[in-house]
Amino acid sequence: MTQTVEPDANATDVAVASGPTAQERVDRWLADFEAALAARDVDRAAGMFATTSFWRDLVAFTWNITTVEGPEGVADMLRATLDSTDPSGFRTTEPATEADGVAEAWIEFETAVGRGSGLLRLTDEGAFTFLTDLRELKGFEENKGTQRPKGVAHGAFKDRETWAEKREREAAELGTTAQPYVVVIGGGQGGIALGSRLRQLGVPAVTIDRHDRPGDQWRKRYKSLCLHDPVWYDHLPYLKFPDNWPVFAPKDKIGDWLEMYVKVMEVPYWSRSTVTSATWDDAAKEWTVQVDRDGEQVTLKPKQVVFATGMSGKARMPEFPGMSLFKGDQHHSSQHPGPEAYTGKRCVVVGSNNSAHDICAALWEHDADVTMVQRTSTHIVKSDSLMTIALGGLYSEEAVAAGVTTEKADMIFASLPYRILHTFQIPVYEEIKRHDQDFYDRLEKAGFELDWGDDGSGLFMKYLRRGSGYYIDVGASELVANGDIKLAHGQVDHLTEDAVVLEDGTTLPADLVVYATGYNSMNGWVADLVGQDMADKVGKVWGLGSDTTKDPGPWEGEQRNMWKPTQQEALWFHGGNLHQSRHYSLYLALQLKARYEGIPTPVYNLAPVHHLS
Amino acid sequence: MTQTVEPDANATDVAVASGPTAQERVDRWLADFEAALAARDVDRAAGMFATTSFWRDLVAFTWNITTVEGPEGVADMLRATLDSTDPSGFRTTEPATEADGVAEAWIEFETAVGRGSGLLRLTDEGAFTFLTDLRELKGFEENKGTQRPKGVAHGAFKDRETWAEKREREAAELGTTAQPYVVVIGGGQGGIALGSRLRQLGVPAVTIDRHDRPGDQWRKRYKSLCLHDPVWYDHLPYLKFPDNWPVFAPKDKIGDWLEMYVKVMEVPYWSRSTVTSATWDDAAKEWTVQVDRDGEQVTLKPKQVVFATGMSGKARMPEFPGMSLFKGDQHHSSQHPGPEAYTGKRCVVVGSNNSAHDICAALWEHDADVTMVQRTSTHIVKSDSLMTIALGGLYSEEAVAAGVTTEKADMIFASLPYRILHTFQIPVYEEIKRHDQDFYDRLEKAGFELDWGDDGSGLFMKYLRRGSGYYIDVGASELVANGDIKLAHGQVDHLTEDAVVLEDGTTLPADLVVYATGYNSMNGWVADLVGQDMADKVGKVWGLGSDTTKDPGPWEGEQRNMWKPTQQEALWFHGGNLHQSRHYSLYLALQLKARYEGIPTPVYNLAPVHHLS
Repeated sequence: MTQTVEPDANATDVAVASGPTAQERVDRWLADFEAALAARDVDRAAGMFATTSFWRDLVAFTWNITTVEGPEGVADMLRATLDSTDPSGFRTTEPATEADGVAEAWIEFETAVGRGSGLLRLTDEGAFTFLTDLRELKGFEENKGTQRPKGVAHGAFKDRETWAEKREREAAELGTTAQPYVVVIGGGQGGIALGSRLRQLGVPAVTIDRHDRPGDQWRKRYKSLCLHDPVWYDHLPYLKFPDNWPVFAPKDKIGDWLEMYVKVMEVPYWSRSTVTSATWDDAAKEWTVQVDRDGEQVTLKPKQVVFATGMSGKARMPEFPGMSLFKGDQHHSSQHPGPEAYTGKRCVVVGSNNSAHDICAALWEHDADVTMVQRTSTHIVKSDSLMTIALGGLYSEEAVAAGVTTEKADMIFASLPYRILHTFQIPVYEEIKRHDQDFYDRLEKAGFELDWGDDGSGLFMKYLRRGSGYYIDVGASELVANGDIKLAHGQVDHLTEDAVVLEDGTTLPADLVVYATGYNSMNGWVADLVGQDMADKVGKVWGLGSDTTKDPGPWEGEQRNMWKPTQQEALWFHGGNLHQSRHYSLYLALQLKARYEGIPTPVYNLAPVHHLS
Repeated sequence: MTQTVEPDANATDVAVASGPTAQERVDRWLADFEAALAARDVDRAAGMFATTSFWRDLVAFTWNITTVEGPEGVADMLRATLDSTDPSGFRTTEPATEADGVAEAWIEFETAVGRGSGLLRLTDEGAFTFLTDLRELKGFEENKGTQRPKGVAHGAFKDRETWAEKREREAAELGTTAQPYVVVIGGGQGGIALGSRLRQLGVPAVTIDRHDRPGDQWRKRYKSLCLHDPVWYDHLPYLKFPDNWPVFAPKDKIGDWLEMYVKVMEVPYWSRSTVTSATWDDAAKEWTVQVDRDGEQVTLKPKQVVFATGMSGKARMPEFPGMSLFKGDQHHSSQHPGPEAYTGKRCVVVGSNNSAHDICAALWEHDADVTMVQRTSTHIVKSDSLMTIALGGLYSEEAVAAGVTTEKADMIFASLPYRILHTFQIPVYEEIKRHDQDFYDRLEKAGFELDWGDDGSGLFMKYLRRGSGYYIDVGASELVANGDIKLAHGQVDHLTEDAVVLEDGTTLPADLVVYATGYNSMNGWVADLVGQDMADKVGKVWGLGSDTTKDPGPWEGEQRNMWKPTQQEALWFHGGNLHQSRHYSLYLALQLKARYEGIPTPVYNLAPVHHLS
C-alpha cells in the first residue's frame, strides 16, 4: 500500500540505528510544515513533499475535492489557498506508526473557518501522501456527544412547543411558508445520508423521492437482490447497523433500515414526489424547482440543488430492431419483477454484469430456461475472495477488532491517491486470480469471456472509472460454468416475434427478454429536468479520466463532478455506493453549510468539462 | 463506593512498600478461588470472602438473581450449586485497578453450560463484593460480530426463500401452525427489549401489546412528558441511540424509536392485541393464553409467560366518596390528555410525585388555575443535580469518554450490593442537599413537604424499594415555590359536584381533577389475567424487603419476582425503567433460552412469598 523502503537489516540496536522514531519524524515534519505555512513560505512547504507525492484535499484547503501532485502541485495549491485557509495547529491524534521506513500518522489541524483531520505518510524524502479533510465548521459544530440537544427545556414556559408539535409545524411550513435552502433530488441512500447531515448541520433542506416510502428504491428491485458489499462498508452516518446485521443485507431489510433511518434521524423527506423541472435564475441566484407532490403541484425556491438520483439511476434501454414485434415480456433489468412468472419459460438476459447474473440465477432457481447473452468481456470476483483479500483489511470484523473503525477505514481508503491506486490494486487481483484459478478455468472452459480491467486492476478501479463491467459472484457463476445458465455471445442484431437474433445469426427463442444493459450517467437527469444546455455545461459525471474503457481522459484524478463544485454554481451531484454516500456526504454537507452561513468558499482547481455525458 | 482502607501514607517506595500490585492480588485470588472450586472445597472458597462481603449472582451459578452474604452465605450457595455449575477459567479481562487498598477487576469465567463475566472487589481480608453473571450459553451464542448471519445464501438453489418471504411466512405461521415458546404480555420497552433478545437467541416468542403500534405506550401519555433519565442510561440492547440523541428524549421521539426498533430488530410483535386470560396446565406444563388480536380470538399455547405490563403499568384509581357526583372532568394521570382543553379552568391534581408535577406544570403553561394536593411528603431532586452528582460517574458523556460504556456502567451498578447500597447513596443526597440548599429552602417556605427517603438515601433507593415517592425536578418545583402552582395538604375526604374537599374541610373548587395517585404492582395484572390464586401464589412484585415505607420486610435483597424464577414455574415478570429493561432482559432471556433448549436450570434460593401484593 505504501513504498517499500526496507529498514537496515543489519541494525542490532534498532532504537539507535534507526534514528528518530516515527513520532519524532512526524512531529518534526508537522512543526516545520506549520512554520512554513505560517510564514507563507510556499516553496519551503512544497519542498517538504517528495518528488512523487500526492496531497489530496477534501474541502479543507480548496473548497473542492482535488489531488495535487509533487512539490509543484503543492506549491500551486498553497499559493492559491494559503491566505484564506490560514491553517494551524497540526498535531498527531495518536502515536505515529512506521512500516518499511514509511511513517504514518493520523493528524488534526485547524483552518480559519474549521477543524480538519488527515493522514500523513512520510518517507525520508518528505511527505509521500497527505490527506486533509474538513470535519466541522467553527461555530457550526453538530449538536452531538456533550453538545447533544437537551430534549426537554427545563423550567416552565407559557406556550411551550413540544417536540411533536415542532416537527408537525416544520413539516407544514416546509415548502409553503419556509423555503428549503437545499433541494436534494432522489431519496436513496445518497439523498438520505446527505439529508441527515444537512439536518444535523441545521441547513433547511428537503429530500424528494418518487417512491411510496423511503427504502422502496431497494424494495422494488429484483427479489433475490442482496447488497454485494459487506456490512462494515455500508454503515450510514450517525447510526451504525447493529452487531447482528447480516454481512450482505437483503434488499427489503435495507429498505426497512432506510425508512427507519429517515424517521429517527428526522430527515425532511417527501415521498411520492417527483421533480418535474428545475430552472436556475442567475440574477436571483436561485432555483425554481417544480415538484409533483403526490398529485399536488408545489414550487420550491432553493438556493442549491443536489442530484442524488443514483450514479446508476437512469436505466439505459437499448433500441434493437424488432423490439416492438416481440410478443413476450421484455423490460430493463431495473424493471424486472422477479422470476415467479417465468417457471418453464425461455428467458434471454442481454448483458453479463451484476444484474444479469443475479437475474439469471433467480430465473434458474425458478426452473426457467435461461440464456445469458455476453456482449463484451466481464470481470468476475467471488464475493468471499473480494471480502477477505481485497476489503478485509479495512472493512471487516477483524478490521474493527484491530481498531480500524469505519470512519478510519474511510480515511485510509481516501488517502490512497487515485493516480497510483491501480498499482496497489493489481497485485490484489493477481492474488485473487491465483486463489480462485480453478474457478476461472471452469468459467473460461464454459466459454465465458473474462477480463480484469484494462490494466488488470480489477473491480474497484472499474467501479471508480466506469461504474460497470463486473459481477461479484454470489453463486451465478457456477451455473454459468456448469451450463445451467446457457451462454450466447455477441451483439443483438434484432428481435422477432419470439426470439432474440444475434449478429452472427444465432437465434435465441424467448418468452422473456431482460435488458441488463446498465445505466446512464446522472448527467441525463440534468438534461431531463433542467435542460440539455445545463447538462452539457456541467458535463460527464463519474470517472477519473483514466483513459481506459468508458473512462476517457484527460486525467482528472477525482470522480468527475461528484460531491464538489461543478461548472454550474449551486448544482451538485451526490451518491455512489453506501460507503461513498456515507463518507462524501460529509464534505458536500459542509460545502452547502458554508454557503448557507455565508462563509467564503473560494474554490481551487474547479474541474473543466471534457465530455458531455 | 467501596471501603476506604487508606494506603500507608509514609511509604516512600510505593512499588515496594505497597506489596503486590492489584493485578497480582487479583490473579492470586482468582487462581486460589478456582483451585478451591475445582477441588470442591467449599469452605476454602468461602473463606476467601471477607466477613462482610456480598456475592451477587445473575443466573451464572444459581439460575436465579440472588445475593449471598459473608463466608457462610457463599458456602451455602456453593454447596448447592458447585457441582452443576462446574466453573473454571477465571481471569481478568483488563488490568486490575486499586483505590484505597481495594483492588477491582473485570473478570470472565466459564461454567458447564455457559460463559460469564463479573466484577471483583478485593480487600486484604478477601473478596468484598463479587458480581458474577451469565453472558451466553455454550453452543447457543448469538449470531453477531464474526458470527453474524451472512444475509444472502451464496450459491444457487431451487426454491430459495428470500428474507422478505421468510419474514412473511414466519408472521403467518406464528400463533397458527407454529406456537411461540414464550408469550410476553406488554410491548413497552420491557417487552420490546426482551422480545429482541429472544429473537437473537432463536427462542420462538411473541410480544403482545394493546396499542395501535409500538411506542404508543409513550406517545399516548401526557403531552409534555420527556424521559427523566438521561440518554446514556436509556439505550436498548443491540442498537444504541445515535450521538445526536437528546439527553432527555421527548415521549414521541422515544415512541418512534421503539417502533423502528421492533421493525429493524425483527421482534415478533402483535399490536392491537390484548391478552384476555392465561391458564396454566400443570400436567401439560403449558399455558393457554387467549388473545384478542385486533378483533380475532386467538389461542396460544406457550410454555412460558412473561408479564411485561409495566412496573407502573396498572393505574391505581382511588375511590373517594362523591366521585360520581363530580360534574367536571376527572381521570387518572395515565389517562390525562394534556392541558389544551383546560386553559382558564380550575384544576386540582391529587398527588405530588413525578406525574403530578409534570401535569401541574403543563396545565400552568396553558394558563389553567392549578392546585396540587400533597397528601404525603415527597422527595425532590433537581434533574441537573441528579445527572451530575448521582449518575454522572456511570451514565454520562464523560463516563463514556472515560471508557465506562453503558454495558460496564450496568455491571458496576449491578455490583453494588443492595444491602449496603443506601450507605453509598446517603452521602450523594447529602451533597445534593447542600448543593441545592436554596432551592429546598424555597420549597419548604412555600409549604412543600420534603423527604429524602426513610433513611435519607434518596431517589434511587426509593425507586428500588417502592417505585414511587419522588419528583425529578425539570421545572415544576419553581412554580410550586413561587406559588404559581398552589399547594393544598392532606387527604381527600370527598368530592362534590364542583370541588375536592379535604379531610380538614378545605374545599378546592374544580373543573378538572387529576388523580396522580400512582400505580399498583404487576401482581394485579396476574390477578386479572390468570386469577387471584395465582397472584397470591407468586406474591408481591418489586421492592427489596427493606422494611421501609411501602417496602415491607423481610429482607430479600433483590427486586421481588423481577427477572427471575417465581413461585409459579413458567411465570415471569420483566420491566422497569429503560436501564433495567436493557440489562436484566439479558438474564431473563438466557433463563428462557436454557429452558427452551432443555438445559438443566436448578434454581438456588427461590424467594418465598411474604406479601400478597
